[in-house]
Amino acid sequence: MRTAQEYKESLRRMRPNVYKFGELIEDVTTHPATRRAVEGHAQIFDAAQKGEYRDLLTAISSLTGDRVSRYLSVIGTAEDMVMNVRMKRLMFNITGTCTGGRCVGFNAINSMWAATYDMDHELGTEYHGRIRRWLANAQKDDIALAGALTDPKGDRSKRPLEQSDPDMSLRMIAKDADGGIVVKGAKVMIAGAAGANEIFVLPGAGYREGEGDYAISFVIPRDIQGLTVVEARHPSDSRDMEAGFDNPVELGGITQGYLLFQDVRVPRDRVFMAGEWKHSLKAVLNFIAPYRSAIGGCVAGQGDVMVGAAALMARANGLSEKVFRDKLVQMTVNNETTFGMGVAASVLGRLHPSGVWIPDAKLANVNKVHVATLPYETKRLAQDIAGGIAETGCLPSSQDINSPVYGELLQKYLKAGADGETRAKVARLIEWLTIGEGVPGCMHGGGSPDGAKLMINAMADIEANIKLARKVASLKEVPAPEK
Amino acid sequence: MRTAQEYKESLRRMRPNVYKFGELIEDVTTHPATRRAVEGHAQIFDAAQKGEYRDLLTAISSLTGDRVSRYLSVIGTAEDMVMNVRMKRLMFNITGTCTGGRCVGFNAINSMWAATYDMDHELGTEYHGRIRRWLANAQKDDIALAGALTDPKGDRSKRPLEQSDPDMSLRMIAKDADGGIVVKGAKVMIAGAAGANEIFVLPGAGYREGEGDYAISFVIPRDIQGLTVVEARHPSDSRDMEAGFDNPVELGGITQGYLLFQDVRVPRDRVFMAGEWKHSLKAVLNFIAPYRSAIGGCVAGQGDVMVGAAALMARANGLSEKVFRDKLVQMTVNNETTFGMGVAASVLGRLHPSGVWIPDAKLANVNKVHVATLPYETKRLAQDIAGGIAETGCLPSSQDINSPVYGELLQKYLKAGADGETRAKVARLIEWLTIGEGVPGCMHGGGSPDGAKLMINAMADIEANIKLARKVASLKEVPAPEK
Amino acid sequence: MRTAQEYKESLRRMRPNVYKFGELIEDVTTHPATRRAVEGHAQIFDAAQKGEYRDLLTAISSLTGDRVSRYLSVIGTAEDMVMNVRMKRLMFNITGTCTGGRCVGFNAINSMWAATYDMDHELGTEYHGRIRRWLANAQKDDIALAGALTDPKGDRSKRPLEQSDPDMSLRMIAKDADGGIVVKGAKVMIAGAAGANEIFVLPGAGYREGEGDYAISFVIPRDIQGLTVVEARHPSDSRDMEAGFDNPVELGGITQGYLLFQDVRVPRDRVFMAGEWKHSLKAVLNFIAPYRSAIGGCVAGQGDVMVGAAALMARANGLSEKVFRDKLVQMTVNNETTFGMGVAASVLGRLHPSGVWIPDAKLANVNKVHVATLPYETKRLAQDIAGGIAETGCLPSSQDINSPVYGELLQKYLKAGADGETRAKVARLIEWLTIGEGVPGCMHGGGSPDGAKLMINAMADIEANIKLARKVASLKEVPAPEK
Amino acid sequence: MRTAQEYKESLRRMRPNVYKFGELIEDVTTHPATRRAVEGHAQIFDAAQKGEYRDLLTAISSLTGDRVSRYLSVIGTAEDMVMNVRMKRLMFNITGTCTGGRCVGFNAINSMWAATYDMDHELGTEYHGRIRRWLANAQKDDIALAGALTDPKGDRSKRPLEQSDPDMSLRMIAKDADGGIVVKGAKVMIAGAAGANEIFVLPGAGYREGEGDYAISFVIPRDIQGLTVVEARHPSDSRDMEAGFDNPVELGGITQGYLLFQDVRVPRDRVFMAGEWKHSLKAVLNFIAPYRSAIGGCVAGQGDVMVGAAALMARANGLSEKVFRDKLVQMTVNNETTFGMGVAASVLGRLHPSGVWIPDAKLANVNKVHVATLPYETKRLAQDIAGGIAETGCLPSSQDINSPVYGELLQKYLKAGADGETRAKVARLIEWLTIGEGVPGCMHGGGSPDGAKLMINAMADIEANIKLARKVASLKEVPAPEK
Repeated sequence: MRTAQEYKESLRRMRPNVYKFGELIEDVTTHPATRRAVEGHAQIFDAAQKGEYRDLLTAISSLTGDRVSRYLSVIGTAEDMVMNVRMKRLMFNITGTCTGGRCVGFNAINSMWAATYDMDHELGTEYHGRIRRWLANAQKDDIALAGALTDPKGDRSKRPLEQSDPDMSLRMIAKDADGGIVVKGAKVMIAGAAGANEIFVLPGAGYREGEGDYAISFVIPRDIQGLTVVEARHPSDSRDMEAGFDNPVELGGITQGYLLFQDVRVPRDRVFMAGEWKHSLKAVLNFIAPYRSAIGGCVAGQGDVMVGAAALMARANGLSEKVFRDKLVQMTVNNETTFGMGVAASVLGRLHPSGVWIPDAKLANVNKVHVATLPYETKRLAQDIAGGIAETGCLPSSQDINSPVYGELLQKYLKAGADGETRAKVARLIEWLTIGEGVPGCMHGGGSPDGAKLMINAMADIEANIKLARKVASLKEVPAPEK
Repeated sequence: MRTAQEYKESLRRMRPNVYKFGELIEDVTTHPATRRAVEGHAQIFDAAQKGEYRDLLTAISSLTGDRVSRYLSVIGTAEDMVMNVRMKRLMFNITGTCTGGRCVGFNAINSMWAATYDMDHELGTEYHGRIRRWLANAQKDDIALAGALTDPKGDRSKRPLEQSDPDMSLRMIAKDADGGIVVKGAKVMIAGAAGANEIFVLPGAGYREGEGDYAISFVIPRDIQGLTVVEARHPSDSRDMEAGFDNPVELGGITQGYLLFQDVRVPRDRVFMAGEWKHSLKAVLNFIAPYRSAIGGCVAGQGDVMVGAAALMARANGLSEKVFRDKLVQMTVNNETTFGMGVAASVLGRLHPSGVWIPDAKLANVNKVHVATLPYETKRLAQDIAGGIAETGCLPSSQDINSPVYGELLQKYLKAGADGETRAKVARLIEWLTIGEGVPGCMHGGGSPDGAKLMINAMADIEANIKLARKVASLKEVPAPEK
Repeated sequence: MRTAQEYKESLRRMRPNVYKFGELIEDVTTHPATRRAVEGHAQIFDAAQKGEYRDLLTAISSLTGDRVSRYLSVIGTAEDMVMNVRMKRLMFNITGTCTGGRCVGFNAINSMWAATYDMDHELGTEYHGRIRRWLANAQKDDIALAGALTDPKGDRSKRPLEQSDPDMSLRMIAKDADGGIVVKGAKVMIAGAAGANEIFVLPGAGYREGEGDYAISFVIPRDIQGLTVVEARHPSDSRDMEAGFDNPVELGGITQGYLLFQDVRVPRDRVFMAGEWKHSLKAVLNFIAPYRSAIGGCVAGQGDVMVGAAALMARANGLSEKVFRDKLVQMTVNNETTFGMGVAASVLGRLHPSGVWIPDAKLANVNKVHVATLPYETKRLAQDIAGGIAETGCLPSSQDINSPVYGELLQKYLKAGADGETRAKVARLIEWLTIGEGVPGCMHGGGSPDGAKLMINAMADIEANIKLARKVASLKEVPAPEK
Repeated sequence: MRTAQEYKESLRRMRPNVYKFGELIEDVTTHPATRRAVEGHAQIFDAAQKGEYRDLLTAISSLTGDRVSRYLSVIGTAEDMVMNVRMKRLMFNITGTCTGGRCVGFNAINSMWAATYDMDHELGTEYHGRIRRWLANAQKDDIALAGALTDPKGDRSKRPLEQSDPDMSLRMIAKDADGGIVVKGAKVMIAGAAGANEIFVLPGAGYREGEGDYAISFVIPRDIQGLTVVEARHPSDSRDMEAGFDNPVELGGITQGYLLFQDVRVPRDRVFMAGEWKHSLKAVLNFIAPYRSAIGGCVAGQGDVMVGAAALMARANGLSEKVFRDKLVQMTVNNETTFGMGVAASVLGRLHPSGVWIPDAKLANVNKVHVATLPYETKRLAQDIAGGIAETGCLPSSQDINSPVYGELLQKYLKAGADGETRAKVARLIEWLTIGEGVPGCMHGGGSPDGAKLMINAMADIEANIKLARKVASLKEVPAPEK
């Protein structure tokens, strides 16, 4: 398994094709717009070497028996899935934010592991063998693998072929004689592409007859010819480009890229779906269930940091955090709820014949609803505890605090339970976590809460519940009204 | 294992010592004040015989290898504990409400299984052997076992010996030469005593030096000499004494008794703690963790019935339940949350050396917070869907609906999507579930949410979280203020 | 103005036509099923005589210049409307619950005051003169006036004439030559009819062409020939029929009657709408706006009692209420919110040409949403503070507490910060307020929260808000999608 | 009254003493860090000239009878106070955010109007005459007046004189023979100073005996000798310094300054408190009540823009906003609640002998609790409706969207219900409103919600509520426990 250093070197060897603020980024490991995200991902390699985290961050490969990165493993049991939830919590603990360049790829492997198995059995394709071979190599090379699900989609009220432009979802525009394909379109809001060696592409939705060109899945090197990555901007991300401490976190960062595919050619061995539209919905669903389970670990992990930052801010203000006991307990309740629901969904799953363990979809979607609401309360409570200075980062910039003219005065007046600069930095951390660069896109990441509610509705067995109610009270049947 | 019939016969053979409304109840299986509760418990015996529920309601005895009631088993694994959560959900599904005469006893066995083991190892006592022998017999006889935890306590701001009356917590007033004890005092709000063969008594709190007489645990027959049970009254429980359908549920019911101990003599073999105050707190904590996990199944189980009843009421009003999709989804989210958190707490537990699996205390207490809040929202939503007729049961009594003078008119005007009487019964079921007899005391049962929050606070590792925050943003230490 | 005594005598002089539990109630002022409700209403007459409350409970008649009951006055200004909100809060303070036999009638007067004015001006009818004359007499006689809005409606998915039975909404079946009418059908869930001298009947909905027979409004004596009142049963209302303190409140009570109209003949002078369907919707809307404003006072008034009862229960448990400061503050926030929103809706209203002040409909409906949610939290918090004994009234009945056999023992063990019987009574009061007889049907009373949300949606000017957003950010117009 | 142009010219004539990012701002009206805030304030002058808004933005001076800016008027009636709430809503509607350089000053005038009156009557001082004379001139000159309340405070667990540095709250270090004073220290987080002509300084807390040097109030020109203003940085405020549309709002902006007082000399005629510590608490309380009422208008006003922006984003995504009806209704409920509570607090106030109308403190503080919670839900709902693109502004920068290399591709893929650039701008507006520069510091502005809860607790008359509960249920007195 690679060291953090080896990982960074591998990134440096790649063709520069990542842009931000209109400029090409020559070296993602040092450019201020991407180096924090790379650093966050690098810590995974570091931590995997440490005894303390080794069991969480590595697993024994079911393919080779070797110890490999858990992010490149097949989730074979409930325990594996619980480890996934805990790993995500750990990584948010360590980096303060999302390392999306690993977990989406991990999820994609597992989703397509099952889908390729099903396709081969039902359609006689050879996808499963391909993914096995690719994965064995990926484990050996210990790559950082991002995943790409979301298409631009265009007008949300229309299907892909009804759009004025057929490229609004990524599509296959040609198929080689030997099985390779050429794709065109885009994937958007793709986490961690800048820090990834390869990208696992999934179909973005369940497709219907006639929409087969959109039902595609494959893996590509991030620097493949024809691919351009433009990183999105975030709240306060100009601070990345500055000196000073106004972005208070050096050990983690988010990138979310727009991937522009201009006739990208994918060789046969890396193609795992190419037109089998009937299997696209299941691929998405198998992606969603573990994703919406494990994301409970993510927001809990950032919530842990918020609890710590809020308590630290209280102290920096000169107050004991005990004053805020009720609020800290509520934040803890929120953290443990998304974590616990992720664990529960993990445990109540089922084994797919391909050997992948798939969490309980109903609980996973219930968790998505919590993930879209509870962290907002946690953030509000963090701001409530932290006071006005942290609410919107309402304090002068680090340039001002270090101004030769009035910096000393500012530091004098910022001092409270900690010296002025330390208090300023803690306030910037609260800002970063609640209204700044550290805020991950958890509400819509992995799908929107409204979609989760639709799925809960579909799985809530109202008829069964009606039967319970009728039996308990010995009630006659009451027919549903016709209209 | 016994049939429901055999269970009821065993109750009929017992000495009558249960009172309600100032009267002695001669036969708890037929008296209107208790027969619904007995019927609820009887269904456990019935269901255990059915293939459908056998795996959930029975277990293989770790003592004898025989199949026994799960309610009399030792919880040895995470899977056992998850089965406990699911069993409670099932029993609320079937009876519509609480069968407290079984689950508290079940919990008490497991708590004292660990405590007796620890006492024997630390103090050289012989309690663990006693509980093993007693349990083997209890399994063989397939008894219904209630549990008793809560003491009257008197003035909440004082400890037991500071009370003006030393009996405010149950206490040992004598110890026989052979190890038997005599106890005096009371246990209050004890679920299901009327339907129980025996009662497992626990220490009601963690006691300190000098309070040893309160640190007692034992099992007694419910009809033991010196014990009087007075059943509490509930909302609308006079309807139990009436004909008609205004208590719409015949298959389940709650009893919560005040147990008055007037110098009750407990023989040596049934005494499991008698003065070992240092072990009393742990006994309570070992009771609390599984209780607060499994109760998530209870409120989910009743929530399932509420979903069904609300949908049925919508139909009875002439509306499709689809109109209320968002509310039904929210109710489902609430149900799955307490259930899921119970599962998660169960799974993340640890094995006690005695062989008992003890759930994660932090998640269990987080779940208790949800149990004290979410069902209230679920009830509100049920009333919201159901309309004014069900909100407070705002419709005439069954006597009126069947009045020879105007009953026909009432039925004419009550008719909507169902005939008048059926619609009235569904409305009564909603009332029963949300503001009537079916409402279990889940908020304070197994301890109050404020107590749970204190425990969460004690277990929330704020210092660890502060360390995370400091590391993420490379922050100096900020000392906690002195005052 | 009448004394409480004169009011009760007037009730005793009326024809007995009120039933409950299948029996005719000969004297509503003494029968246990109705006397508490009558007592609650009687306190209005008493309080109106006291200097302390006179300004709130009386007003100067715009018809005669005399001081009259505010419940029989025309609401002519914002101040009058604020007084209405405050009066409702006061009456819940004094009676602990709803005195619905006055406020609905009050609202009905004002709604039809405007509607009759409009009809006369648009259609040349003579209704407004009739209502003036009737009201002058009603003020002089100082009658207790209930109001009746809700029809049985039958199948909610069908309009009145589509029902299998045309009587599912109250209708006019004949019109006399002189303008009197004969009506048939029912009004249901009518608050306070048992304690009323007269009943003001409103159209139950906005009607369309062809549905004119349903567009009717009139006032009748409660004991008019052909009218039968069957009182609905409530949670725990059998306790009304018992001795003892298990219904802890003697000074207030709810009745909600089903009014069965069997060819009731209404004389011309008491008919205020008879077929003018175009005006029926406005009559309902003019009823709704003040109702949904003033109901904020109701739930605040009961909330005040809940705050007091919870604090008292804490003391009776031996604890200072200061322990529960946060919860009591939250309860207070809830109370002041529904009260405040009622005041705001009152103030931001407009004057109808007839001289009636009509509150702001948007704020009134927002308040209805709060009224359907906040009191549920307040009740939960009351139960949270109060402990298990009060949560579901989990303590023995007053017969048991006074049992010669074991009553003394129960009192011994119930004692804490107060003697056993007092503590029991406080617990019963919490039960009464949160899950018992005192719970008014505020969620659906005056219409359901879903209806309120529909109205808010209709009044929320999304287009105006879009214009604001576009202007703030200089954005192009974005057309709404076609489908 | 001045035009927007005249207002800007007056700012340009002032001594440059405002800094940001370490640099002196020569002209606040054109510098990118301040011009948006100035533009926001300038719109007040513009709007006051328009017939549409004149009644809201101007008032008749009680001093001169002239029409003056409402922001410089004495609030003399409930109606005036309601106008204040509505004016704040309007200004957020127009600018999208806070124009804090006016409303705090307005509040300060009114608070000190009452305090100076009381001091003169109780202590024989001459402050009230001074403030009258100053105000008459301010009205004539139509100045923009900011207000300054918050002191740095240092260690929150210590009083001013216990701090290691006595300057942690602004203090008087000398008093001239003629009554002028010299002050030292700082005021922090002062809204709108960059756009103000003058600043009204208030005592930051209630002071005790011996702390008289902190009990000071006065008005100064913003460019007075010895005063340095350092503007705080906000989320994403570097975008102010860029070209492009990533800060999508040109018509409004927030500045919050740290005011550093280095021996600033205030002449006698502008000093309104100088040592009268007994009156400092009342001055703060009189500031708080109207502030916490009117702020309900602020968050409602921004909420209106959020409703519009969310609906616009839905359309830009190709969806009808009707899909999100429930969420838009909930956002509307939130907006109307803080607005309505502000109106209610305004109306239920009382007239101070000095002629100032002071809103109801209990309702004002209840509103502060809502202001600290409801907007967070509104923001969450806006993000929920808007989708991933807007949640964290997850789309490329405007430089990228206009890149000659790949800008066209980005615009192609951003297109949905609107062209790519328009959709990007709407997404940036959502980001600006929910997690960017437009977010005002409403949670702690005007004091923290915990402080509001303390005040509610102090004003909640628990004893009175206990009396209600006791009377309703005829209960004995239960004494509060001793400890």
